[in-house]
Amino acid sequence: MSTAKKGPFFLTNTLTRRKEEFVPLRPPHVGLYVCGPTVYSDVHLGNVRSFLTFDVLYRWLTFVGYKVRYVRNITDVGHLTGDVDEGEDKIARRARLEQLEPMEIVQKYTNGFHDVMRLFNILPPSIEPTATGHLIEQIAMVQRILASGFGYEANGSVYFDVPGFATKHPYGELSGRKIDELLANTRDTEGMEEKRSPLDFAIWKKADPSHLMKWPSPWGEGFPGWHLECSAMSTKYLGGTFDIHGGGMDLKFPHHECEVAQSVAADGHAPVRYWMHGNMLTVNGRKMAKSEGNGFTPEELLTGDHKLLEKGYSAMTVRFFMLQCHYASTLDFSNAAMQASEKGLERLEKAMALLPGLKPGDADGADIEALEHRCHAAMNDDLNTPVLIAELFEAVRLINSVNDSKLKLTAGALERLRSLMQAMVRDVLGFRAEAGAGGDDRMLDALVQEFIHLRAEAKARKDFATGDAIRDRLGAIGIALKDSKEGTTWERT
Amino acid sequence: MSTAKKGPFFLTNTLTRRKEEFVPLRPPHVGLYVCGPTVYSDVHLGNVRSFLTFDVLYRWLTFVGYKVRYVRNITDVGHLTGDVDEGEDKIARRARLEQLEPMEIVQKYTNGFHDVMRLFNILPPSIEPTATGHLIEQIAMVQRILASGFGYEANGSVYFDVPGFATKHPYGELSGRKIDELLANTRDTEGMEEKRSPLDFAIWKKADPSHLMKWPSPWGEGFPGWHLECSAMSTKYLGGTFDIHGGGMDLKFPHHECEVAQSVAADGHAPVRYWMHGNMLTVNGRKMAKSEGNGFTPEELLTGDHKLLEKGYSAMTVRFFMLQCHYASTLDFSNAAMQASEKGLERLEKAMALLPGLKPGDADGADIEALEHRCHAAMNDDLNTPVLIAELFEAVRLINSVNDSKLKLTAGALERLRSLMQAMVRDVLGFRAEAGAGGDDRMLDALVQEFIHLRAEAKARKDFATGDAIRDRLGAIGIALKDSKEGTTWERT
Repeated sequence: MSTAKKGPFFLTNTLTRRKEEFVPLRPPHVGLYVCGPTVYSDVHLGNVRSFLTFDVLYRWLTFVGYKVRYVRNITDVGHLTGDVDEGEDKIARRARLEQLEPMEIVQKYTNGFHDVMRLFNILPPSIEPTATGHLIEQIAMVQRILASGFGYEANGSVYFDVPGFATKHPYGELSGRKIDELLANTRDTEGMEEKRSPLDFAIWKKADPSHLMKWPSPWGEGFPGWHLECSAMSTKYLGGTFDIHGGGMDLKFPHHECEVAQSVAADGHAPVRYWMHGNMLTVNGRKMAKSEGNGFTPEELLTGDHKLLEKGYSAMTVRFFMLQCHYASTLDFSNAAMQASEKGLERLEKAMALLPGLKPGDADGADIEALEHRCHAAMNDDLNTPVLIAELFEAVRLINSVNDSKLKLTAGALERLRSLMQAMVRDVLGFRAEAGAGGDDRMLDALVQEFIHLRAEAKARKDFATGDAIRDRLGAIGIALKDSKEGTTWERT
Repeated sequence: MSTAKKGPFFLTNTLTRRKEEFVPLRPPHVGLYVCGPTVYSDVHLGNVRSFLTFDVLYRWLTFVGYKVRYVRNITDVGHLTGDVDEGEDKIARRARLEQLEPMEIVQKYTNGFHDVMRLFNILPPSIEPTATGHLIEQIAMVQRILASGFGYEANGSVYFDVPGFATKHPYGELSGRKIDELLANTRDTEGMEEKRSPLDFAIWKKADPSHLMKWPSPWGEGFPGWHLECSAMSTKYLGGTFDIHGGGMDLKFPHHECEVAQSVAADGHAPVRYWMHGNMLTVNGRKMAKSEGNGFTPEELLTGDHKLLEKGYSAMTVRFFMLQCHYASTLDFSNAAMQASEKGLERLEKAMALLPGLKPGDADGADIEALEHRCHAAMNDDLNTPVLIAELFEAVRLINSVNDSKLKLTAGALERLRSLMQAMVRDVLGFRAEAGAGGDDRMLDALVQEFIHLRAEAKARKDFATGDAIRDRLGAIGIALKDSKEGTTWERT
């Protein structure tokens, strides 16, 4: 274990609302569960931020030496419109609209989700379980909840008895809600006739005969409640009590609060030791949502094809933009901020490109070990990526100074600086070299621009033979030059 | 439906051993099921050939206007070592060797499989169901088989009674086996004590307490038999009888024969109307297998990092190589054949690059409509991709002749030729422009080689300033030149 060297890791536990030292239950193993997407529509940028937060957590835990089992689910049934117990299954609804079998919808949007994760260099989890793949485990958990006395059947559905549970166990600890206030603030809604209390939630829902996504159960044909799947799958793969459970802040209540109650009822103990919640992404100060017309997709972001975007931004620029903000703070998307991130990433990548060629000197003009400690300390302080990035710009300054012969670093110090930058920029923050600044596209363009420049020089000195030869050579490579008043541009043939 | 225009589609039905006209059960819908991978190890090139065959089928059916629901499964439990009913679950065994949870193995190799499919431009299916995601459906099917009288329970496992089934229904029709000969040629194997006949196969296997992958069932804790999952999942998503079932030839017996028997027993009718089997890939005349040391992975193929490979080949070169052979023939991998394919694909892609720039003439020197009909006829004749490719080389000849001003085509004929080539090369055969000849990597390299050439010329005429300037300009772009006795090479910095 190399953790000792890097110091203790502190993270903010939503359960206690305090920054706590992270001590895993069974070191060097760490169990991490994160709520994945409901695969009924394209992922938007707000979702990306949440998955990015836990990607960096996963990368950091792995970097300091833990063996992480990272479980992130795919919700492919049971999530109803309105996020409550009434309404239509989100996937079934989309299937009806697109005239497809529900599992075709699941496949289409799961593929799309994976494409987006790959684009942003978000690592795949160790296990990616699906709700439909764990019906047996969910039915067994409903049975255990019924056996505990905190569940009841009504007309083929099974509900969790929240007020009953709250008389015996704490309820609302995670989200800071109080049962009396909740009861005072809720009113009866549609479908309430089956529920004893408006706070109760479905753990198994009866399906009518026209429903496509349904399975046999001891209570007739139906499907599992949305909150149940995460409880069943997290504990199946990580054990009855596991280390870290993450998700977006909007999932804290009721989703995560229900998870706690389900596990306490079914298994007699709380499931999670550290709860971690990422904050939201806003756009020009307003919540990102499709209904607001500001929930652009990653693809629109890359192409710039959206009324709120002045131009397209690379996936690594977005990654940089998001990591310049602490995960627990809200982050506001704006073109100005994105363009600043683009410049910042470019500066960082230019310094990365200089690193291999730096010449060692005969003295150490900077303390690289101290820099390394500060980098580790930033991440150990609740994944403080903005502070880490600030330290990396200190490193950029050193690199540029060595390159300009204004600073000396010995071969040993240079080697330490190189491995620090590789670790922090590539492994921990996950910036991919090829997609952002310095990527192949940019390289290709830069090379073609050199030829366009050479050709312009040749034409200027009336050497048309050379000019034509350059055009022909590029043509053979598959690059067509187009001359216009504004200058020469190129495209692939 | 545009099928009429393109003529009837014939394919070889393994069930009848004849080329038959394909008529779907519910046009314009087509149900297609293909046996996917068992995700316990890296995919090798032989697997790729099989998935490529059905990719081209899927593309052709879609191209002629059918709405295809394409289901390709992931086997993540139940496939035992030795492909028989004894031995260890392949995934559980790998999990033990790699010291991981079985579902971590599943995730790792599913991700790897998807990466390989993407690399070869093999389209994702409409639904990709997993065996562990369909336990309830499999248990229900075992119950229907038991109810039919063709299954029996023994010590917590359930077996299919093959000789009993064969007294009432035809058995062996698909693979051409005869029950008497099979009985005469089998002998009792380990674990036989539970089976009434050596031909019987497990549809549910009892799991011992140490087994990680097990589920409750009416017969105690266990897991489904390998043959059962395809029967349960294909009929769930495509209906009790569906159009086409595909797979590698090695799956015909016993896997597909068992699928037929299971459906006839459980549902009273045969599940599949057209069975289609792809042939094998050999290497230098010998079967591709890990034990032979010739089962190289796609990655080794691309890098050339294997003793049997003279160099690396691009994914599209491999695709071209495979499609130059009919799917029902064996195909032998050799460096000579690969290098011929590389040249062939390059010729094709060069002609594709010329297409947009061709100038229309005032006469039609070739009959493009007839060429188009021959292309369609080739595909309609049991997916005859080698004949299609030969026709495309006729098109290449025309393109080159127009480019050399040796042939005239009117604007209309040129447009028809362009759309034919786009359809056949990109949509139907699935050759991606960017990854093979003319791809960005190759383009980048070609551009750098031009600069290396210019620099060598400058040095030859003692113009060292220009030589150094070229090195510096490339360095600024992120390209480092390395001079050695063998010449100049380059790498990214």
